[in-house]
Amino acid sequence: MDLIDGNQIATAIIAELKAEVAAIGGRKPCLALVRVGEDPASISYVKKKEKTAAEIGVTSRVILPPVSITQAELFKLIDDLNADAAVDGILVQSPLPKHIDEVKVFRRVSPDKDVDGFNTINLGKVAQEDDTGFVACTPAGIMELLARSGVDLKGKHVVVLGRSLIVGKPIALLALQKRAGANGTVTVCHSATANLPAITRQADVLIAAIGRPEFVTAEMVKPGAVVIDVGVNRVPDPSKKTGYRLTGDVAFATVARQCAKITPVPGGVGPMTVAMLMKNTVKAFRMQALAARGG
Amino acid sequence: MDLIDGNQIATAIIAELKAEVAAIGGRKPCLALVRVGEDPASISYVKKKEKTAAEIGVTSRVILPPVSITQAELFKLIDDLNADAAVDGILVQSPLPKHIDEVKVFRRVSPDKDVDGFNTINLGKVAQEDDTGFVACTPAGIMELLARSGVDLKGKHVVVLGRSLIVGKPIALLALQKRAGANGTVTVCHSATANLPAITRQADVLIAAIGRPEFVTAEMVKPGAVVIDVGVNRVPDPSKKTGYRLTGDVAFATVARQCAKITPVPGGVGPMTVAMLMKNTVKAFRMQALAARGG
Repeated sequence: MDLIDGNQIATAIIAELKAEVAAIGGRKPCLALVRVGEDPASISYVKKKEKTAAEIGVTSRVILPPVSITQAELFKLIDDLNADAAVDGILVQSPLPKHIDEVKVFRRVSPDKDVDGFNTINLGKVAQEDDTGFVACTPAGIMELLARSGVDLKGKHVVVLGRSLIVGKPIALLALQKRAGANGTVTVCHSATANLPAITRQADVLIAAIGRPEFVTAEMVKPGAVVIDVGVNRVPDPSKKTGYRLTGDVAFATVARQCAKITPVPGGVGPMTVAMLMKNTVKAFRMQALAARGG
Repeated sequence: MDLIDGNQIATAIIAELKAEVAAIGGRKPCLALVRVGEDPASISYVKKKEKTAAEIGVTSRVILPPVSITQAELFKLIDDLNADAAVDGILVQSPLPKHIDEVKVFRRVSPDKDVDGFNTINLGKVAQEDDTGFVACTPAGIMELLARSGVDLKGKHVVVLGRSLIVGKPIALLALQKRAGANGTVTVCHSATANLPAITRQADVLIAAIGRPEFVTAEMVKPGAVVIDVGVNRVPDPSKKTGYRLTGDVAFATVARQCAKITPVPGGVGPMTVAMLMKNTVKAFRMQALAARGG
């Protein structure tokens, strides 16, 4: 069994981006990070994104509206960033307070600056196989993990567990695309799927994104399969200082024994998302520059 | 075996829409039909749409630019229709001449008037399960055929043959939606799929949309399955006056013997597309009226 090391692959991508940004003369790519309120997880996510941006040489502009901001005010803030030629990418950190409609906010971000890939147009572009859009960071990261681990999906049966908008559906559409590395036969399973193990056992590549700790057990996996674990679940663990440990959607210890390749949790898909956010930001910068030149 | 009669179901929908439109006081819904050039198939399709609109009481406005129209001129024409408050739906008949980028034209149509459902935003909304958009007419028609034939996809394995943008991908996303009638486990197969019969034989509901005459044979179908045939293929037939006969993607005679329900070709999915176009037009009218009232 080979471990697919997300930390190592993310580090390689970050190094590539650093070299690419270093070669840019003049203004560097700029990512606006909007964090509403003081949610502890959001604070830590935004900090991580800021740190990685700095490492690469991407300018970050952190904007911290209070939790009391109205939706109209947040729209205005986004409109200003959309119009600001010095800003290439905009990320509005989720979750937003309950009084704000998240989907509407994501739709407000200009599709050309939507480095999170959550705008409806960019989701549509994934279905259309249109490369001018942005792919959401987690599914983009999974495709990159597969490509850099030598896994070609062509002719393979890819089974996706979970139909979420930010992982399940876009990864299914990506795996299905008619392009090198993709071209998979794709099945999407979910909570209403009957006879699930009989389906997951057919997977040459199994992608688990359902948010249920250690849900995928060895009997559900075909020997020799590639397993991508997107889950990040907190399981109570009194032996830990924090009182919990992180576990994926896959029962790693037993599944790892029989599969060909597997991502660990943590250290698999997780580190890829920030790397892909930076890749999208540099892409946004290139596209803006091209548009400014009338290209 | 039950025949799923598309003509009968389409007729029922058209009657419902006719009653609905009759009840509308004042201005009736208006559909703009743009046909570029004199392609014989396009002439016949647009005529059929005009005729059905008239039957329902939907006003149609047929616009016939010459084949020499430039892309910029076509954009201008669409912009004018987008801005025209008397127009609810806009359909640009495909195929367009080679010098015009079809995807760009579809994207130019306002998402709120895109009754063909080809705008990138409306495709994204299908993935987002957002009902404010428009679903492309063929996949919408398939869902309606299933619903009106008492086929609930919940817990069923739906296998889609074909990954096209106008049928395969949207029908997969629709079947997957978390809503009454849908909730299927969905597999998408295509030209690069290995061991295809083993996969199609698992289908409780098999949707064939690959454009290959009689490709699906009895060995590929599980006894008791529901089979939806989206194909419309012309096969040379000297016994016919036209020199050809129409056939679907399914070998009807042998498959019909073992499945529970099946759509014929012609008279299955085909008649549904125009009915769904009209349904979308009436929906666009309602949404415009609501928006005008500030709703």
